[in-house]
Amino acid sequence: MIYQILEKLDKKLHFEQAQAHCDIPCGIYDPSGAQIAALTVVRMMDLMAELASGETKDNTEFHNSMERYITVKEEHAEKAKHEIRVIWGDYFKQDKHPNVDDLVHRIMQLGSKARQTADREAGLALVNAINEFAEIFWGTKNVKTKKAKAPYAPALEMVYPDL
Amino acid sequence: MIYQILEKLDKKLHFEQAQAHCDIPCGIYDPSGAQIAALTVVRMMDLMAELASGETKDNTEFHNSMERYITVKEEHAEKAKHEIRVIWGDYFKQDKHPNVDDLVHRIMQLGSKARQTADREAGLALVNAINEFAEIFWGTKNVKTKKAKAPYAPALEMVYPDL
Amino acid sequence: MIYQILEKLDKKLHFEQAQAHCDIPCGIYDPSGAQIAALTVVRMMDLMAELASGETKDNTEFHNSMERYITVKEEHAEKAKHEIRVIWGDYFKQDKHPNVDDLVHRIMQLGSKARQTADREAGLALVNAINEFAEIFWGTKNVKTKKAKAPYAPALEMVYPDL
Amino acid sequence: MIYQILEKLDKKLHFEQAQAHCDIPCGIYDPSGAQIAALTVVRMMDLMAELASGETKDNTEFHNSMERYITVKEEHAEKAKHEIRVIWGDYFKQDKHPNVDDLVHRIMQLGSKARQTADREAGLALVNAINEFAEIFWGTKNVKTKKAKAPYAPALEMVYPDL
Amino acid sequence: MIYQILEKLDKKLHFEQAQAHCDIPCGIYDPSGAQIAALTVVRMMDLMAELASGETKDNTEFHNSMERYITVKEEHAEKAKHEIRVIWGDYFKQDKHPNVDDLVHRIMQLGSKARQTADREAGLALVNAINEFAEIFWGTKNVKTKKAKAPYAPALEMVYPDL
Amino acid sequence: MIYQILEKLDKKLHFEQAQAHCDIPCGIYDPSGAQIAALTVVRMMDLMAELASGETKDNTEFHNSMERYITVKEEHAEKAKHEIRVIWGDYFKQDKHPNVDDLVHRIMQLGSKARQTADREAGLALVNAINEFAEIFWGTKNVKTKKAKAPYAPALEMVYPDL
Repeated sequence: MIYQILEKLDKKLHFEQAQAHCDIPCGIYDPSGAQIAALTVVRMMDLMAELASGETKDNTEFHNSMERYITVKEEHAEKAKHEIRVIWGDYFKQDKHPNVDDLVHRIMQLGSKARQTADREAGLALVNAINEFAEIFWGTKNVKTKKAKAPYAPALEMVYPDL
Repeated sequence: MIYQILEKLDKKLHFEQAQAHCDIPCGIYDPSGAQIAALTVVRMMDLMAELASGETKDNTEFHNSMERYITVKEEHAEKAKHEIRVIWGDYFKQDKHPNVDDLVHRIMQLGSKARQTADREAGLALVNAINEFAEIFWGTKNVKTKKAKAPYAPALEMVYPDL
Repeated sequence: MIYQILEKLDKKLHFEQAQAHCDIPCGIYDPSGAQIAALTVVRMMDLMAELASGETKDNTEFHNSMERYITVKEEHAEKAKHEIRVIWGDYFKQDKHPNVDDLVHRIMQLGSKARQTADREAGLALVNAINEFAEIFWGTKNVKTKKAKAPYAPALEMVYPDL
Repeated sequence: MIYQILEKLDKKLHFEQAQAHCDIPCGIYDPSGAQIAALTVVRMMDLMAELASGETKDNTEFHNSMERYITVKEEHAEKAKHEIRVIWGDYFKQDKHPNVDDLVHRIMQLGSKARQTADREAGLALVNAINEFAEIFWGTKNVKTKKAKAPYAPALEMVYPDL
Repeated sequence: MIYQILEKLDKKLHFEQAQAHCDIPCGIYDPSGAQIAALTVVRMMDLMAELASGETKDNTEFHNSMERYITVKEEHAEKAKHEIRVIWGDYFKQDKHPNVDDLVHRIMQLGSKARQTADREAGLALVNAINEFAEIFWGTKNVKTKKAKAPYAPALEMVYPDL
Repeated sequence: MIYQILEKLDKKLHFEQAQAHCDIPCGIYDPSGAQIAALTVVRMMDLMAELASGETKDNTEFHNSMERYITVKEEHAEKAKHEIRVIWGDYFKQDKHPNVDDLVHRIMQLGSKARQTADREAGLALVNAINEFAEIFWGTKNVKTKKAKAPYAPALEMVYPDL
């Protein structure tokens, strides 16, 4: 409980931005890779549900498709976690955004959850948390963001930099 | 339709060989890796069909074997595509064989098809297209080819350089 | 030479769009991964040039940085090629855009060139060719594109979907 | 049969230790990575058996979990083999322990067996063979070993260096 | 600054342990992989320094060895980060140890630093932070720890579970 | 010394062939992948020597090429070892060819040596040992072999199955 209290305290307090610290070491950081990966997780969950609602469930075609969807889901949930971890470790330095440690830990757990289950809600939670991260990230660079539907299924609303 | 016409046109026209362009940059290119990978795809399809024709379909041994076959099929279809892409991108230069762009695109699609399905015909089509590529490749090096059965199951007829 | 003529011919002729063919099999295709990878290639070339223009060239720090830049350049040039190849093989079907086979082959060669050299021009050529691909890709989906500078160094002008 | 006889002969004969040969080239060799990997193989077999003994066997959650366990089992059996192979190839030199070639070959086969099956006995055999290897390895370094239960399920008795 | 204050506050407050939350989902977590990887980073820095202090600095043998050391350093710093991230994301749940988010973020930064430099101090800092993590980890499992020198160069003092 | 004696003893004694044991489990084993990888090692050594004999040794182009050659050498020496290890572990069973354990151990050491050095002799030794393995392998399948020069530089004499 104490952490919830501290977190609320944090949010009311001033903090310096991250961007000053990464001018030289940081190269190209972009959360879009993690966002696409998270969308792919949800897409695979949808394909899995669709396949499982079909009639034949034990022929080679069924197993072939099911395994492929699960494998792609695994890889992309892992990719989403990896890309967020890299930005967090290499871009965010001291005096970083007060939510970012907790948010990243939450993304790690949601990424694991999305691997462990076929439940679409778990996939959506991962997408949302990564969108939240994208918003914080672009904020530290003073790049405005907008929301728009992804131009492919599952056409979820995503956070994009407004370039 | 226009492409089919153009393709036929191409085949009747003279073209210069590729080999002059790769003397120095090109190292070791050999389509045999892609050929063995394509054979492995068919082999896995055969093992999948054999397993699925058995009696027990829902114990751990069934799932263990089925998943392993599918995974190996995935990896080798992908490997076949990757190796062909490397030779195409790094070895074939301007004034290349007129069929090669289209053939490579066909191999990419057949490789994807062979991942998406357990249908043996799709695997055989991949093997044949890659044999066609091997024949063109060795032709650009003025190395004669021969056909012989692979010395392991599935003992399909393959194109080999006649060394 | 014949190919150049045929290519010009192609460009004047009507062709059906690709999108009709990928409604069901195609999942999430997005050239942004390849675009970011190509930008990273140029960024690494810039860092390499900067390092080489420094004074000390033979201590462990120099070698450590130089090797890391080259390795990242290699990986991202390869990633750019791989991502384009996947979209080309899995998304573009028959009656595809007439330039796409040749453009993809060009991207493969430019990707290889960008690995083989430290010359910034080679990196820029790769970025441009992939932007051209992105424009064609979004066109097949009837998604408008815009040009904007990437929000990180090297702040090259990139093609983005106008969502 | 002849090999069994020769092996027995070997065991009775004096042999020089390996450690003299690896003072300079060898860096950090530690069989604990292979041991943890082998434990993971058994753990996955246990989870597979538990899942298969449940009621629902054909929904997406079942397939999702089963595939993940099998994939982790595959990776860790392979990792165990790889790590042992590296130590064997890079650390053990001429006049090496007389059992080590045969033991390593046995580990390779047990690792393959543990991939091919869901049978717990095969996993235990892999763990035991790798513990035997660990004992020989630490012996060549004159580091004493002890036996203790691993501090996580499956809490098998493992060989540890007594530091 | 506010974070430093909050952190100190945290340390004085009661918190529930993590272990209650991972009985079922958690499999085998062991920080020893990360510890060995961090030791390898320091070992490579030592080999780099030794090589650079030699006489010949521009022949193929020099480049061959230098590149190999740097590559191994890169891989093992990355591996250390990856393994810690997995334990953090999959094992530590809510009401976790109050230092763990910050410590993990520090490890990520130290891991990046150890990749970016050849400075031995950066490697030692990584080893120490991961030992600190190991101590916390074993504490949540009520497994006692001890300190002992690693049985290979660089023979740094490491935290081991006292089994 | 005892092993040399035993080895000679072995060679004079009858032994059963391996092929009977792999009818069902073994899929597609082919040493050609390892052979091409070993050739690539020698090719890279040649390119390294050529580059180092040039005039400019400290610009970005030099480092870019040198690192790429070394990396490819590393990967292919490792690939050669991996492929031989797989055939040895999965194909050769009990009553196997008496030389094969020792030969495989020798290949592992030669593969490591070829990574550690830029010395062409080390690369040639690896090629020869793998050719020796190929000869034994095809012998167990009663497939005749022939010797021919590889159709690309370095055009070393290789063992091929006579199909």
